[in-house]
Amino acid sequence: MSGQHLPDGTGGAPTAPRSGRLSRRRLLGGAALGGAAVGGAALGGVAVAPSRDDVTDAGSATGGVVAFHGAHQAGIVTPAQDRLHFAAFDVTTTDRAELEQLLRDWTDAARRLTRGLPAGAGAVGGDPLLPPDDTGEALGLPAARLTITIGVGPSLFDDRFGLAERRPAALRSLPHFPGDVLDPARSDGDLAVQACADDPQVAVHAVRTLARIAFGRASVRWSQLGFGRTSSTSTTQQTPRNLFGFKDGTANLKAEETAAVDEHVWVGVDDDPAAAWLAGGSYLVARRIAMDIEVWDRQPLADQEAIVGRTKGEGGPLSGGPESAAPDFAAVTGTAPTIPVDAHVRVVHPDAHGGARMLRRGYNFVDGSTGLGALDAGLFFLAYVRDPDRQFVPVQAAMSRADALREYLTVTGSALFAVLPGTDEAGFLGETLFA
Amino acid sequence: MSGQHLPDGTGGAPTAPRSGRLSRRRLLGGAALGGAAVGGAALGGVAVAPSRDDVTDAGSATGGVVAFHGAHQAGIVTPAQDRLHFAAFDVTTTDRAELEQLLRDWTDAARRLTRGLPAGAGAVGGDPLLPPDDTGEALGLPAARLTITIGVGPSLFDDRFGLAERRPAALRSLPHFPGDVLDPARSDGDLAVQACADDPQVAVHAVRTLARIAFGRASVRWSQLGFGRTSSTSTTQQTPRNLFGFKDGTANLKAEETAAVDEHVWVGVDDDPAAAWLAGGSYLVARRIAMDIEVWDRQPLADQEAIVGRTKGEGGPLSGGPESAAPDFAAVTGTAPTIPVDAHVRVVHPDAHGGARMLRRGYNFVDGSTGLGALDAGLFFLAYVRDPDRQFVPVQAAMSRADALREYLTVTGSALFAVLPGTDEAGFLGETLFA
Repeated sequence: MSGQHLPDGTGGAPTAPRSGRLSRRRLLGGAALGGAAVGGAALGGVAVAPSRDDVTDAGSATGGVVAFHGAHQAGIVTPAQDRLHFAAFDVTTTDRAELEQLLRDWTDAARRLTRGLPAGAGAVGGDPLLPPDDTGEALGLPAARLTITIGVGPSLFDDRFGLAERRPAALRSLPHFPGDVLDPARSDGDLAVQACADDPQVAVHAVRTLARIAFGRASVRWSQLGFGRTSSTSTTQQTPRNLFGFKDGTANLKAEETAAVDEHVWVGVDDDPAAAWLAGGSYLVARRIAMDIEVWDRQPLADQEAIVGRTKGEGGPLSGGPESAAPDFAAVTGTAPTIPVDAHVRVVHPDAHGGARMLRRGYNFVDGSTGLGALDAGLFFLAYVRDPDRQFVPVQAAMSRADALREYLTVTGSALFAVLPGTDEAGFLGETLFA
Repeated sequence: MSGQHLPDGTGGAPTAPRSGRLSRRRLLGGAALGGAAVGGAALGGVAVAPSRDDVTDAGSATGGVVAFHGAHQAGIVTPAQDRLHFAAFDVTTTDRAELEQLLRDWTDAARRLTRGLPAGAGAVGGDPLLPPDDTGEALGLPAARLTITIGVGPSLFDDRFGLAERRPAALRSLPHFPGDVLDPARSDGDLAVQACADDPQVAVHAVRTLARIAFGRASVRWSQLGFGRTSSTSTTQQTPRNLFGFKDGTANLKAEETAAVDEHVWVGVDDDPAAAWLAGGSYLVARRIAMDIEVWDRQPLADQEAIVGRTKGEGGPLSGGPESAAPDFAAVTGTAPTIPVDAHVRVVHPDAHGGARMLRRGYNFVDGSTGLGALDAGLFFLAYVRDPDRQFVPVQAAMSRADALREYLTVTGSALFAVLPGTDEAGFLGETLFA
């Protein structure tokens, strides 16, 4: 363990282990990581939970630990981190118990990784004749505010796992919108993992570790890296800029607006009779939006601002005032609306959609070049909503129909997931779904 | 300019402009950015050079300015930043004067961007009826230690620009090595831009801006993002880990070893009679090395360490001692060499190659997934050498032939560039080539 810079609350010679848990988890971890099939026997709701002391210790040593446990998953109202690795998985097993066990194993791993600890016995602490439990590239790195947020896609509720009757009514493939040029290899998925951190190596390590744990049970369908969060999700954060050079997400829901978050983000226990299990969860819309930045860059500043409806510098609405000012859609300049009728800010504004708001948590991406001399760049749009049919679909439909921005955007990937409720030290993500 | 958070030493009402330079540069910048053809007339060696006071001011305001001017380009011995955007360009003009002007314009832009200033008149400071000079996504961001390093590829010395007789003898396509599965769309190029910064948005902004300035003269052939520098290039930096989980580049050349850097990195004036113009420059080997991380992760720890020849934890040689210890290749364990004959550290060690060393400056990459459930991940290898024929080709040949690591690596892109000497406030990158 000499190379292990981080305290490992459960490895080595643990203090006061709770009986039997360590060895059983290790056994499981070893079996799963070695590629052996994991037996179908359910093992009860017992998980290795670090004590709060461990979390505090790790936090002080590692520069930013976001609490994993709670009524809701972390990574939603958590102040947006700077980097993203998102992955969608296809479940390859057809055994319901194996799927449930995968979610238990992912929960255990997420508990450790988000504290800055390695998977299992670590990269160097195990038997040298076995593959290490941890892949090692995050060894010595702090937790970097890592969050791991897990969701389930509509396809998980087909006839494979006996879950069809538990499918939330709103959890179905998004409609095809004008402007969608969807690549199936970048769309949909049975399971989703959003890993956010302030260090890309930490986020990549998390997705890689969960993919590895899934071996034989689920495999990566697609994944996407992102940088430079494009939305602020806390009043403590500045609004960052997207690749069109504009501040993006000014009117975003903020963590501090707890009443609004309750109203617009968290699924309520009575929202859907078939899906009380999703109470405390949310829906996640993921859209890979390619931006035609070379063409955009040739538009005059005044045109860019008219298309967005905000100034490029301060980000204030064209009707006047600072970034935080409410747009005045009734304002006119001469005889024309000061904020044009097809300006992005007008088309998607909550006032045009019965007050519907979303919690956006998107990231910029650049995936090299297109082969035609352009950057393959854009926005990986992530939005959390309580009801996609009310808060996302109508807004996207209006945008596809009437938004002046649409000329510069092509949606190349799309997915909808139900984001599981949070868990506590004894439970696992997905527990209510399988109960 | 109300949205402009950074001081702009040349915009607005400049103090003490040197006669005529501002307006001419602006005129040029506007014409180039607007897509109009730039005339072939050479404009003399005059460039807008910020005063040292400006640099200091910008530095204090922007959190990290790396000096652009000097005998050598920045971004080579500069302590490696955390993020990379690398782009190779095809020159599309056939007019030599336009090519020369492109290098002048890139130099001017690099002077500004590396100080945390926007291109030209900025994203919001220009005529609203014209496209903004700057794309805006880095507005409000600090310089983030941005460096822009420019090179030229072998293909630039064909018959298009009258440069054939000035081609350095060592500047030719690298040989095909076993294990190379090269994608032409990820290989070679007439020009190369390495942008490194501590913020990916700043690095992306730099490449995007240079691509935009090149419009009509050169277009992006391929580009690559990277994160988590895999080598330390200063004694002040920890050795980071690659995606195999090992410390990488322990024996790398460090900036502080000035005599060794002179010997191994900078081209001397007498190195090549045809290419005295390259004195003070270097050669850059760029290799996109895909790593089969899923297979690697299934190898026992002891096997991984035998393949690398170092411990995974501390990174010390298997012959003993800390990371900084010299490997003892004569050490035996029982009857076998303690460091196996095919261990990476042995095969590539300078002792096996006549003392040849290189200055490595690589980055990890993850470009999503392969479509087969694996991450499209690896190492974007960048190495600066004085003589690729002596310092790179034999090392790579040995690695392809004998290195145990080769089973886990596939080289999918490859390029060699001559990196231009540095410039001063009055010159431009490439000046000696066109003189």
